Amino acid sequence: MEEAREKPVMEITILAFAGMTPLDAVGPFEVLGRLPGAKIGVAALEPGPQRTHGGSLALVADYALTDVAATDILLIPGGPGADALAGNPQVTDWVARLHETTRLTASVCTGALILGAAGVLKGCRAVTHWRAMEALAGYGARPVNQRVVWDGKVVSCAGVSAGIDMALQLAAELSDEETARAIQLAIEYDPQPPFDGGRMESASERERELARHGLNQP
Amino acid sequence: MEEAREKPVMEITILAFAGMTPLDAVGPFEVLGRLPGAKIGVAALEPGPQRTHGGSLALVADYALTDVAATDILLIPGGPGADALAGNPQVTDWVARLHETTRLTASVCTGALILGAAGVLKGCRAVTHWRAMEALAGYGARPVNQRVVWDGKVVSCAGVSAGIDMALQLAAELSDEETARAIQLAIEYDPQPPFDGGRMESASERERELARHGLNQP
Repeated sequence: MEEAREKPVMEITILAFAGMTPLDAVGPFEVLGRLPGAKIGVAALEPGPQRTHGGSLALVADYALTDVAATDILLIPGGPGADALAGNPQVTDWVARLHETTRLTASVCTGALILGAAGVLKGCRAVTHWRAMEALAGYGARPVNQRVVWDGKVVSCAGVSAGIDMALQLAAELSDEETARAIQLAIEYDPQPPFDGGRMESASERERELARHGLNQP
Repeated sequence: MEEAREKPVMEITILAFAGMTPLDAVGPFEVLGRLPGAKIGVAALEPGPQRTHGGSLALVADYALTDVAATDILLIPGGPGADALAGNPQVTDWVARLHETTRLTASVCTGALILGAAGVLKGCRAVTHWRAMEALAGYGARPVNQRVVWDGKVVSCAGVSAGIDMALQLAAELSDEETARAIQLAIEYDPQPPFDGGRMESASERERELARHGLNQP
């Protein structure tokens, strides 16, 4: 841990909320949290457990939004609850204010809708979950169908699992490639999906229909 | 949601504990929780928030171990806290008892040590995080250096992120390939790691050293 102590603290703030998709937050948490000097805080409108849409899991937020006046890295996850949160000025004002002084502002999945509502994406190239690509344009963003999209200090990525790929890119930017590779090794991220899929372009009609309306919400 | 209602409930139990690695649990949560008919419960020695080793995130367990007498799928995540938990007979007895009637018993990362201590891996082919492969043999398992290892109804996988790959295999087994593909689409799991890595074999000495001793614990 000596190397960790040598580095100055890098504050990373992750927004949490009811109806979030936990992997959107936890993928980047595991990557960015391992950066030497990183200090992660999870913040929500009200501190305490933030339940998933289906209710079977909760992540605990230790901080209220009002506890966080500035952060080096701001990470906004998505999920079914993100659409409603994008309409909450307490949240969008907070995001807009923090964004003024962040080093990097990032979204996973439909977390991009919250960045959009906060005005962060105006004129920006950005991406989100396939279900929300049209909504993105409504915020003045320029939707790009790519797994991870950088535009200055604003970084967005596709749905849910894409947060891991994005976070490894962020880790390399915030430290160096060797450290990012060490993190990739620590989490054994050598993905071997059993199916060649996970994107709209190659999905069958039936798979798309199931993904939209036929799955459970945990 | 009509299709979800047609299916009988499939009970999935995820063990949570202090010092767990949240991605070990949340990766499979996002995959298995989307199975039509799935009902996920998170259980711990004491219900309530279970903190990560570094303390910056907690997952909430809604159930005590004593609340869960049987389950269709038992999933044991790992993390720095797993080593200690493997020595706790309250946990290992519970795992051994549930395993008698599960349809599938699965571990992610060093969750395999808990399965091992519960006697589940005796004579079984199994895998765990690279840091614990030797410990696995101590439990009578036959360590296999593979991302996901099946041995009858016991399924184990490599470290942390491997839980997503394993859970997609489990999803196909528990439903069908089309449903598993739809889940892969829902979480946009078309991984594009920025580096070709994430495994010991291809890591440099410096990366291994960093991964072992140079990273932060969030």
